[in-house]
Amino acid sequence: MDLEALRSANPDHWSKATAIRALTLDAVAAANSGHSGMPMGMADVATVLFEKHLKFDASAPLWHDRDRFILSAGHGSMLLYSLLHLTGYEDFPLDELKNFRQLGAKTAGHPENFLANGIETTTGPLGQGISNAVGFAIAEEILRARFGKKIVDHHTYVIAGDGCLMEGVSQEAIALAGRQQLSKLVVLWDNNNITIDGTVDLADRTDQIKRFEASGWDVREIDGHNPEEIDEALTWAKTGKRPKMIACKTHIALGHAAQDTSKGHGALTDADQLQAAKIAYGWDAGPFEIPADVKSAWEEIGRRGTEDRFAWEARLEEISDRKRAEFHRTMNGEAPKKLGAVIRAFKKQCAESQPKAATRKASEMVLEVVNPVLLDTVGGSADLTGSNNTKTGDMEVFDETNRDGRFIHYGIREHGMAAAMNGMALHGGIRPYSGTFMCFTDYARPAMRLSALMQQPVVYVMTHDSIGLGEDGPTHQPVEHLAISRATPNTLVFRPADVVETAEAWELALTQTGTPSVLSLTRQGLPAVRKDHKAKNLTAQGAYVLADAEGKRQAILIATGSEVAIAMEAKALLEAEGIGTRVVSMPCMELFAEQDEAYRKRVLPAGPVRVAVEAGMRMGWDRWLLGERGREKKADFVGMSSFGASAPAEVLYEHFGITAKAVAGKVKALL
Amino acid sequence: MDLEALRSANPDHWSKATAIRALTLDAVAAANSGHSGMPMGMADVATVLFEKHLKFDASAPLWHDRDRFILSAGHGSMLLYSLLHLTGYEDFPLDELKNFRQLGAKTAGHPENFLANGIETTTGPLGQGISNAVGFAIAEEILRARFGKKIVDHHTYVIAGDGCLMEGVSQEAIALAGRQQLSKLVVLWDNNNITIDGTVDLADRTDQIKRFEASGWDVREIDGHNPEEIDEALTWAKTGKRPKMIACKTHIALGHAAQDTSKGHGALTDADQLQAAKIAYGWDAGPFEIPADVKSAWEEIGRRGTEDRFAWEARLEEISDRKRAEFHRTMNGEAPKKLGAVIRAFKKQCAESQPKAATRKASEMVLEVVNPVLLDTVGGSADLTGSNNTKTGDMEVFDETNRDGRFIHYGIREHGMAAAMNGMALHGGIRPYSGTFMCFTDYARPAMRLSALMQQPVVYVMTHDSIGLGEDGPTHQPVEHLAISRATPNTLVFRPADVVETAEAWELALTQTGTPSVLSLTRQGLPAVRKDHKAKNLTAQGAYVLADAEGKRQAILIATGSEVAIAMEAKALLEAEGIGTRVVSMPCMELFAEQDEAYRKRVLPAGPVRVAVEAGMRMGWDRWLLGERGREKKADFVGMSSFGASAPAEVLYEHFGITAKAVAGKVKALL
Repeated sequence: MDLEALRSANPDHWSKATAIRALTLDAVAAANSGHSGMPMGMADVATVLFEKHLKFDASAPLWHDRDRFILSAGHGSMLLYSLLHLTGYEDFPLDELKNFRQLGAKTAGHPENFLANGIETTTGPLGQGISNAVGFAIAEEILRARFGKKIVDHHTYVIAGDGCLMEGVSQEAIALAGRQQLSKLVVLWDNNNITIDGTVDLADRTDQIKRFEASGWDVREIDGHNPEEIDEALTWAKTGKRPKMIACKTHIALGHAAQDTSKGHGALTDADQLQAAKIAYGWDAGPFEIPADVKSAWEEIGRRGTEDRFAWEARLEEISDRKRAEFHRTMNGEAPKKLGAVIRAFKKQCAESQPKAATRKASEMVLEVVNPVLLDTVGGSADLTGSNNTKTGDMEVFDETNRDGRFIHYGIREHGMAAAMNGMALHGGIRPYSGTFMCFTDYARPAMRLSALMQQPVVYVMTHDSIGLGEDGPTHQPVEHLAISRATPNTLVFRPADVVETAEAWELALTQTGTPSVLSLTRQGLPAVRKDHKAKNLTAQGAYVLADAEGKRQAILIATGSEVAIAMEAKALLEAEGIGTRVVSMPCMELFAEQDEAYRKRVLPAGPVRVAVEAGMRMGWDRWLLGERGREKKADFVGMSSFGASAPAEVLYEHFGITAKAVAGKVKALL
Repeated sequence: MDLEALRSANPDHWSKATAIRALTLDAVAAANSGHSGMPMGMADVATVLFEKHLKFDASAPLWHDRDRFILSAGHGSMLLYSLLHLTGYEDFPLDELKNFRQLGAKTAGHPENFLANGIETTTGPLGQGISNAVGFAIAEEILRARFGKKIVDHHTYVIAGDGCLMEGVSQEAIALAGRQQLSKLVVLWDNNNITIDGTVDLADRTDQIKRFEASGWDVREIDGHNPEEIDEALTWAKTGKRPKMIACKTHIALGHAAQDTSKGHGALTDADQLQAAKIAYGWDAGPFEIPADVKSAWEEIGRRGTEDRFAWEARLEEISDRKRAEFHRTMNGEAPKKLGAVIRAFKKQCAESQPKAATRKASEMVLEVVNPVLLDTVGGSADLTGSNNTKTGDMEVFDETNRDGRFIHYGIREHGMAAAMNGMALHGGIRPYSGTFMCFTDYARPAMRLSALMQQPVVYVMTHDSIGLGEDGPTHQPVEHLAISRATPNTLVFRPADVVETAEAWELALTQTGTPSVLSLTRQGLPAVRKDHKAKNLTAQGAYVLADAEGKRQAILIATGSEVAIAMEAKALLEAEGIGTRVVSMPCMELFAEQDEAYRKRVLPAGPVRVAVEAGMRMGWDRWLLGERGREKKADFVGMSSFGASAPAEVLYEHFGITAKAVAGKVKALL
């Protein structure tokens, strides 16, 4: 590249873009790790985006109607941190950049949304940002329909690299965005032809333009170092009815000895080469130094949106107090006051009617009373709507003709669905929940982990939660998936036993502010186990005594979900033989672990033998069986230790020995 | 559809295809569950494929040079079972079809490869079959290059539905196949425009033809009920240099009242409608009855390949004894005799040199000695070749110009990579291994679970296995992933502590015949902990005493991988204070659990306090801490209980308290 030509053609642009490159080189050198090449390659595109198109106000990073900027290629985090510093975000003083990748810094190796304002989402696992962005764009559409264009009207811009586009989840996102005609979504593809292993060609020859077009996107190709072309393309991107992809031909690590090579992807820390690049840029400021005029030009960009924001605030004042209050409640993720009341009323009604139902059906019953009062929910399913029971009567389907719709047909795309839900939650104003089979947690895993890491209260409605699924067989029967979700930090895993516990689980899930929930629900019908109405949410304690021993307490059975009824049957068998048996329902291990020791001991006192029963793997159970004053040789587990099989559910429960008789037998063997 | 016109145009074809439809209707009705519509829609395509194109011999289902037929849309399992029954596969007598979806039947709800010959892979989780198929086709290319076209020369045919094509993994597979010009891969897309929720349009408007073409496929569209068009397209599909996709326009549940509706996807069990469909077909045989002439025509098809097979066997006789023996060894998945010897020699050398190395580097050192003697290995990486250390000096890159290559650049496609490895292993003749970061186990999860369920000895080289990854931060630092892999049935999880244990882990992984292995390897350098050479593979016992207490044994430290050295340091601290401390290295929990109780007690005797140390979540550890005669209040754990952070590795180990001092402190607190 002829840097001198680039520089002389657009000297003002060049100095602004070069500030990003210089800060990137300096921060990576200081950390002695990181990824230099991408920020250096995409600095021109990002500069034009921030200077002329992105609606933002650096002094109000949480302005609800800002455009969202998603760095899907999260390894290029210094691009984002440079922009946030240069434009004057409070969370990004120069010291943060000097502390790049150090403990406690806001400038983590990859952008982490929970560390600082200005970081819209956590990226790094490739393909996630572009898929979150689909959720951001859907959230904008839904909120615009709900609150009006004067209050909600913004774009979502994504920078994605070849890694993002190779990950399968990107196809799910691209196809969903195309189907939904998300015209305010703009993807800037960093087409630099380089991945870690070498040129893209080593692993891929896909014509990305044709691929995006095949899914209903409009596409343009530009020189990603030409500010006029970038500007024109971004202007074009805000027109029309389809999502837009701009293929930006760039040079990774522009101007460095490693330009256009895979070495350029990583940490360019060689001091001489670093200096040589700066000389080539015509940049003579010292490390982390930004010439005053350049900094000042960038800070002006940071203030570009202030007037727009004031105008928006004025418009917000113009709407009715009620609507404004609702907008604030929604955007702040607060549950409406009525929510608790409708759930309590529902529970009371269940105590009277004692409904028998599969918990997936119970979930639908709860949603039927919740959705009309909690208008923030957006439901969906990965093509299992009738099986997951996630669409309630009041919900219309969201599509290009009905942006009021609150139910999304995500298609057979569990991963894209979860990532889109993350985007909606991050955007704010939406409480996303969606369903698939529990076993397909596997497909959604990367995004489910990010819900937890990003502290987003997404709700995963995972039905068909055991061998109780029956004939579809082991490919569809989760056995290790409760353990997988429970092993994940900051995740609540609910496995309710009946309609009442399902209502309690939903109440907890819908009032979380920083934790995702997994609702593990049965396909098969279950009896009511909660006989008396309690206004209090017993599930909030994680576990509680469902039924105590009639005589001397000799055994404690601990169970979750569909196995609580089995434990109750086992109790009846044991009591008939004079063996006093307590049944503890444990719908949420994580919440039980959070209770104080006194409560935990009250529920699980030392002394009696303990048998846990759950149609899943034992992993995770030993704490409650062997620990918490349990004792080896005085505890056992009834559940799965292998994959399931294809047969009717009741046959499988017999075959794998998950029966009241087996539970009672284990108790007697321990006594 | 005018069935009468279809029937009269090709009566012989019609009766054969209708046999599939009738058996499907009967089996689903008998099971009262299943998926009728897809086999009914694709019966014509499958009939022509089996009758005129597929190279197979029903009497020799394991014939190595057969074409592979992959039913990616696995819910349509009755299509496959019908074909296998009709053509005369021994494992599929009529009784098996009558027992569809019942316990112990070979006719599980979804096809399960390990239940019967004739089922090439386990499908049902959508997108897996088409992605396995890429691995099958790669295996064929590599083996053809290795053993010659006279011995290996076959096609891979896939039937995929809209669900398969919506799953992101299909994009990874399609792009990889296009890049690799897998000309012997043929995908038959069941283009019926229906998914469970309704018409495809609800969730997708992708132009699939354009999408495949964008990735370098040749595509044709046909009427999937017209046998001539099907035949012509299949003839065409065997020409040219690119993979082929045939878009087959079909009617789901052809001829049934539910034709062309989402209801048609599921179980069509209504007796009257079933009968009406059979009448419309002109089929008057009773349930599960196949007219003798039709059965006989199908059986003739089942024998179509016999002559070809004999010719192939004759050709196999013509090659040298040595080459033939090697072919058989390879295809039977037997390790060469030399493998054990080279690994023992390598260990001996390590005992002398005491190499310090990251275990990812250790893994490369092992592979450098293994790959030249085990020619069945095919390595790869999801664009982290230099980080995963999976490419050895003798390995060339596999691509369209070099089918001899044994290293595959999978691109940033962890899921597609894992699924392709499953396909290679299922094909036979290949021992696939490949790498990514341990944290991205998440992306590969659905296929990793299937390695376990399908009993395939795939090796996952998962490097950067903890916070020891350092600055890339929590998005890249696994904490729950050891628990996730350990919770999965039939999976060996190895976390070796040094070069010697890494060699032992590889030996075990490469000699498995029905179990996948996960090698959890460090980024950071580790000291040698195995000081003396033992010819015996100590890792085979799962855990062993690495260093015993010097005086009275008061404490046992259990550790894995990078934390074994920390445990050894803690031991030194404790012994200095007179606290006799044993260190147990536990590179594989699953193998330790398989040892007899006497051995387990010898390694972990009752009495001493126990502290486990592993830079991951505690889940899975309580068995060894609290159980096995451990005791609460006498055991503790040093590890992670949250996500990690972005900082240098050594800072993180301090920050999260995973240090020798912390371990020693825990021991003293328990004593």
